[in-house]
This record gives sequence, structure tokens and C-alpha cells, in this order.
Amino acid sequence: MKPLTTVPTAEDIKTSHQAIQAYIHRTPILQSQSLNEMTGADIYFKCENFQKIGAFKMRGGATAALRLSAEDRARGLATHSSGNHAQAVARSAQSLDVPAYIVMPHDAPSVKVAAVRGYGAEITFCENTPKNRAATLDQVVARTGASFIHPFDNYDVIAGQATAALELFEDLKVELDYLMAPVGGGGLLSGSALSAHYFSPNTKVIGAEPIAVDDAYRSMQTGKVEINETNITIADGLRTHVSEKTLGIFLDHVEEILLVDEDEIVHAMRTIWERMKIIIEPSCAVPFAALCRYPERFQAKKVGIILTGGNVDVEKLPF
Amino acid sequence: MKPLTTVPTAEDIKTSHQAIQAYIHRTPILQSQSLNEMTGADIYFKCENFQKIGAFKMRGGATAALRLSAEDRARGLATHSSGNHAQAVARSAQSLDVPAYIVMPHDAPSVKVAAVRGYGAEITFCENTPKNRAATLDQVVARTGASFIHPFDNYDVIAGQATAALELFEDLKVELDYLMAPVGGGGLLSGSALSAHYFSPNTKVIGAEPIAVDDAYRSMQTGKVEINETNITIADGLRTHVSEKTLGIFLDHVEEILLVDEDEIVHAMRTIWERMKIIIEPSCAVPFAALCRYPERFQAKKVGIILTGGNVDVEKLPF
Repeated sequence: MKPLTTVPTAEDIKTSHQAIQAYIHRTPILQSQSLNEMTGADIYFKCENFQKIGAFKMRGGATAALRLSAEDRARGLATHSSGNHAQAVARSAQSLDVPAYIVMPHDAPSVKVAAVRGYGAEITFCENTPKNRAATLDQVVARTGASFIHPFDNYDVIAGQATAALELFEDLKVELDYLMAPVGGGGLLSGSALSAHYFSPNTKVIGAEPIAVDDAYRSMQTGKVEINETNITIADGLRTHVSEKTLGIFLDHVEEILLVDEDEIVHAMRTIWERMKIIIEPSCAVPFAALCRYPERFQAKKVGIILTGGNVDVEKLPF
Repeated sequence: MKPLTTVPTAEDIKTSHQAIQAYIHRTPILQSQSLNEMTGADIYFKCENFQKIGAFKMRGGATAALRLSAEDRARGLATHSSGNHAQAVARSAQSLDVPAYIVMPHDAPSVKVAAVRGYGAEITFCENTPKNRAATLDQVVARTGASFIHPFDNYDVIAGQATAALELFEDLKVELDYLMAPVGGGGLLSGSALSAHYFSPNTKVIGAEPIAVDDAYRSMQTGKVEINETNITIADGLRTHVSEKTLGIFLDHVEEILLVDEDEIVHAMRTIWERMKIIIEPSCAVPFAALCRYPERFQAKKVGIILTGGNVDVEKLPF
């Protein structure tokens, strides 16, 4: 294996999946009779909230780490993130016994700082602006020689995120009509779209996004990377915008992006908590919110939904 | 099948399990690497929080309903409960297309009243005292001819609750050293103890109970049903005291009752939420709290824990 420089092939996704076996769980697929009755759809939830570090990001982090050359890997892994990707990189580095260097905004939640530190990573704090974050990361990389693992604009990461959908297709006895995933930077959605293209070509892939940060929706229309004017959404994992690499894959393999408002996200999150008795973070509720917004579209359809993560501060719930 | 008038046999539990197949889920068994590392035990969680109506009570309710004669069943099912047993009886009756009559205190949470009503049951409200509840139930039974299904002092219910442990033993590849369950009235603990006795005789069964309502602990010492002087515990499903039938089984087949305090219950509940990303109600956290209180006892032991339910008001969390 080596770092991917082009769009991952079916073989790239499969070899990535094989490589990361020791670093991930094969997460369960759950169904809910009451949610099926409520929506009229036949929904298969791929529970990445039960993944190691509590989110699918473990897949991309581990894949990128393992695709580095031994020499590069030994110098360490670096990234900037205040979220699940930081934990994924830190935990991958810990498992591989190499250093991790994480750049985090100084106002990152202390629980997330503690989690990253718990995996033995070195944290460098920065101002919470894109420019300062990038500059701080550049300094860290220059000082350490570590390899920067971008959270999504990275084909290794995309190949890793694609393995969640690969497992879903492998484990299901039925063929899905639709596969839905949330879209922030687009690593998961682009990877899912590639897996559907290769391994379940009759399955249409739909992204779901908060209206407040509808960059993916607009980017699909214009064909170029559009920027958000605000990042005010409860779906904190989806505030970022898509990249050249992820959008390129969307344009070839994603059917559509559906938009939902904030109330719909909170309602969907609460419904899944109460009916399925599982904990999902707000970003994770966005595809189910979209399905609930357009029920006629999904009537009697078999729909896979990737539940992306369960890292939520239980003291600060939106209900 | 007919109503059981003596302690359920192995055959009684197996025929009950067969009979209720269409009315229950075979719930998954989950493990958590981080909780195993935290405690030093090897824990297998039987997830009855994913059971229909969100709790193991569905097993006992369905068993009792199905063991009635067709004539008795046609006149309907009755019980008094403001909790999961009310939902179990109401849903069993709905599935069997017979009436359900539920006596609930007038101050029962509106969400629980709505759930019971949602299953088509007729609700009769009463004062929230044991005496008034019993008198109101007697009136309902006299008026309707319905069969009273006691929440736990009933061998059919005990046989039904025993099926959770039966599934756990059937599905596990390993032999458990311990099986833990919370104890309120004792239907689940007595049923679990019977299943262990019949189907996994080397497994010791341990009950777990809040210190504030330690009637089971004291009853095990005196050999007679002891009463609680208070019902002030966050574990709302465990406020009731044990009965002649359940205590009789404890005395033969339960190793010990372990006690935990309120802070330990809340901490255990939160730990399971945060690490396992699943929703459990406070009563359900009591066995894990007991395991955490006595870690040396469970070092390197294989421990089954029945997670009893996930019905919690997400707007009123203890954290």
C-alpha cells in the first residue's frame, strides 16, 4: 500500500478495508420497526456511532496512517481539527506507536482536548480562524516532519470512509434503493458514493446537509467549490465546506443533496434517541431528517443511512 | 400452555420463549472494549433497552397473556403500573386483539399515559397509594372480567422475564462466571436465576439494588419479604419491594444482592451512555454500578449484565 494520488478504485477501497481491520469495529446494522412504520421506508442504519472513537472518522484516519511509508509514518501524523478527526488521527498514531501532532483552536471544548490528549497526542493551540489554523499546522509540520492528514481532501481518507458503505453492502441480504450520508467536507459522502458505484451500482447515493451550510448543495449546482457564509448550525460536524477532491466525486456519483432546517435536525435526533435508544450526535441525524422531510420519495424503498457518530456532550443537549 | 401455579421449570421457560417469538425481539449482546479496560472484567451486555416497548417487561407481559385460556384472554388484560409493565400489557393486548385495562396514578408522567393509550388501552386513574391502586384495580376487574397480570408476583411473568437470560446463554460462546440484573419486585432477577440454574449452572447470579430501597438485600438476610421505608431513588423501576414468589426463588438460586448509592447509579448510567452510545434508564445502570463498586470481585471474570430498559425522559436527565 502507498498513499493514493487519484480517485480510489474498488481495489483501493478493499485493500484499505483489509488493512484497517485491527483498528476498527465492524459496526452493526440496526432496524427500527417503529421508524419504518413512521416513515413508510425500510431503513437500515449503519451504526458508526458504535465505531472506535465514536465515529466513522476512525476509518479514514487509520487508512491514511497505514498508507504512509514506514519512514513517513515514523515521523508522525499531524492534523488540525477540534472534532472526531483529531481523535481518529491521535488514536491511529497511538495504535501504531508513532507521534501525533494535533492543532486545535484554543476554545475547543475541554472534553475534546482531553480525549485527544488521552490518546497521547501533542496538542498545539491556535486562533480559531482558517488562516491561523493552517499557519500553525505548517509550523508543526516544518518542525516535526510529520505527515499532514487532511480531514477529507485526501484520497486515503476517502478510501477509508468508503469502507463503512462497503461493509453495509456486504452485510445486507437486500439491495438498497438509496444510501444516505451527511455531508460536511464530503469525505464520507464521496467514499460512500464510490462504494455504491463499485459494489452496489443500482443504489442511488443522496447527501443530506443543513440549509444553514448548504455549500455542497450549491457546489453540485455550479460545479465548483462554494463557500458557506455562516457556520451556525447545530450539526457541528458539517460546518466545513467541500473540497475539489470530494466535489469531483459527488459530481460523478452522487444523485442529489437534500437540505433540512435546524428544527428538523433536532427532531430527527430526538426521534432516533427515543425510538432506537441509541446516542447519535446532531450531524448524524441529518440524513434521517431529510428522509422525514421527503417521505413520499422513500415510500417502500430500502434505504441505508450511515449514522456517523455519537460524540455528544450529554450535559448540553438541544432538548 | 396454561397459567403456571408453581415455580417455572426449564420446560416452562422454553415453551414460554417459543410462544412469545412473534411479540419480542431477540436483542443483541454488546461488548465495550473501553468498559472492559476500565473495570478489568469481560462484560456481555444483553440489550433489553432495544426490546419492544423499550424494556424486558415485554417478555413477561406477552408470556402471561399467552398462557391465559382463550376465554380468559378474550375478556382482556388488566394491571396497575405507571411504568414499563403497563406498556407491556397494553401492547400484548393490542397484538392479541383483546382489551387492556390499565390503572395508573393520576400523577403519572403524561408521556407514559400517552404511550399506554397509544397501544389502545383503557386507562383508569387512581390516587397514588398502594391501597387505592389495588382497590381501583379490583373494581376494574370486577367490572370487566379481565385477568390481572401482576408485574412480578406471577409465575407466568417470571417465566417470561427468564427468557432474556435464556437467550444470553444460548447466544454466548463462553460460559459466564456471573450474571447480574437489577432487582425491584424481582421478576427479572428470579427469572434470570432460574435460567442460570437450568441452562448455565456454573454461572452465579447477583442482584443489584439501590441502598435507598434495599428491601431485597434485607429480605435475603431475614428470609421474609421486607418493606422499604422510602421510595426515593433515581432508579424509578426499582422502588417496589419483592414478593413471596420472587423471594422464594432468590433464596434458592441468587448468590447475593449488592447495594449501590445514588451517585454511583448516575455515574454508571452516564458512563454507559458516553462509552457505549446507548440509552439506558437509571434502573438499568444499577448492576454496572455494582460491578464498578466491587471491581476486585469481577477481575478477569466473564460477567453478563441485563440492560433492562431505555425509557427515559431525555428532557429530564440527571446530568
